Amino acid sequence: MKLMRVGAKGAEKPAILDAGGVIRDLSSLVPDIAGEALGAKGLEKISRANLGALPEIDPATRIGPCVGNVGKFICIGLNYADHAAESGMDVPPEPVLFMKATSAICGPNDDVIIPRNSIKTDWEVELGVVIGKEARYVEEAHAMEHVAGYCVVNDLSERAFQIERAGQWVKGKSADTFGPIGPWLVTKDEIADPQNLKMWLEVDGKRYQDGSTATMVYGVKHLVHYVSQFMSLQPGDIISTGTPPGVGMGVKPEAVYLRAGQKMKLSVEGLGTQSQTAIACP
Amino acid sequence: MKLMRVGAKGAEKPAILDAGGVIRDLSSLVPDIAGEALGAKGLEKISRANLGALPEIDPATRIGPCVGNVGKFICIGLNYADHAAESGMDVPPEPVLFMKATSAICGPNDDVIIPRNSIKTDWEVELGVVIGKEARYVEEAHAMEHVAGYCVVNDLSERAFQIERAGQWVKGKSADTFGPIGPWLVTKDEIADPQNLKMWLEVDGKRYQDGSTATMVYGVKHLVHYVSQFMSLQPGDIISTGTPPGVGMGVKPEAVYLRAGQKMKLSVEGLGTQSQTAIACP
Repeated sequence: MKLMRVGAKGAEKPAILDAGGVIRDLSSLVPDIAGEALGAKGLEKISRANLGALPEIDPATRIGPCVGNVGKFICIGLNYADHAAESGMDVPPEPVLFMKATSAICGPNDDVIIPRNSIKTDWEVELGVVIGKEARYVEEAHAMEHVAGYCVVNDLSERAFQIERAGQWVKGKSADTFGPIGPWLVTKDEIADPQNLKMWLEVDGKRYQDGSTATMVYGVKHLVHYVSQFMSLQPGDIISTGTPPGVGMGVKPEAVYLRAGQKMKLSVEGLGTQSQTAIACP
Repeated sequence: MKLMRVGAKGAEKPAILDAGGVIRDLSSLVPDIAGEALGAKGLEKISRANLGALPEIDPATRIGPCVGNVGKFICIGLNYADHAAESGMDVPPEPVLFMKATSAICGPNDDVIIPRNSIKTDWEVELGVVIGKEARYVEEAHAMEHVAGYCVVNDLSERAFQIERAGQWVKGKSADTFGPIGPWLVTKDEIADPQNLKMWLEVDGKRYQDGSTATMVYGVKHLVHYVSQFMSLQPGDIISTGTPPGVGMGVKPEAVYLRAGQKMKLSVEGLGTQSQTAIACP
């Protein structure tokens, strides 16, 4: 299923994209694409519904973040060997964890605000893993029982804030609009192998990132297991699994960063496409 | 006012400690000590209430975390010069930010679980600042308009997870129960000077930390201003402002860490006292 949230910012309704490409209102079935609705029972309830009987939603309606009430937005650093190399860092001996502020989350096509005093705003296309069931000290063999599905994440990053401003990385990862998620939360049954998905990102039509989750260092199962050793995971938490090569910071001979007016387009295979325009901070 | 949340885990009611030391139920006035209730209007509504007419709550009732639905739990690293020295690090040229998982939050007297595979679980008494009003790019002169009040925080930390496990610090700061907050959210009008509060922490009656917010490197006003340059702040967000010297990691000649069965007691002047028992991970 392709679950989504549509409507004005802060007033999104739960919805689903049906097989015919029509957006249907799920408000009569679940209060939100969040929390309990992401568990096995919630997803089963939606899957049993007669979608054709649910109200259609105007396809021009704004698409919001595909998960509501996200408790934790956990990111994995340097999880593609080539990206680590372009960043001038070694592949870590175990996953590097950092957080994005949940207040950074926005819709997949919302404008991305370049923060005040930023000169190094950068992009990162990533596979996001959405938790469906609480997880604590989960074995890798059982990790997938805790996953509801996947979404595209653009892990926007201000490199000076992240690296040059007295640490930790969260400082450069958390500005408002630095976390577009969606357009859809695609349930895990639709993704045969999360470790074999093409992914790409373009700025003004130029392809900067062109990779595949096949080259991830630590895969989805291991990450759910690993993170759950250090903190518990709740339904609606997102683990963003790292980015392949091609970020602006890694461009040679000179890094390239976003300027107001530029347009990003990005996708992960099977999970839909995001488009954002970078704008100056109002 | 001394605002609190009492009741079973996940089912806490909003409450207030009145001038006579009686806990009164605020359920008829606000849905929770969270979100809008922390703004000027919400606090004014509570302040105008006839507390004597509100139902009494049994003083033996469990005290929960003093703020509900915390969106971000932001911490400031190395914000006391002496603590930086005992950690073998320099005072940073600007504040260091890191996150604790909000799932780490627990009540002030709940048991603290030593995580699996932990041998370096440590304590940190801190002054927590609770946000009452959304903040973006706030000037220092206006920072206090965005503060609802203060609370005691124990920023529990697993030092091996934090420092020896391939980064970032969040990995050692986020285990369940690693964030006791409360007993009270004390509104800012009751704290004449947040930069002159005694604070201490004892383990099994031995005083390890004995400091004052007077020796903070970056004070409350500056921190609210500073954090708001990198991310927006919402009502209910908490900024924990760093710890004075005396953490277990800094004990000479050999570091001291928590063992199951040990009891912590900690306080910040005017904000109440926390007591926790460390227990093994069940």
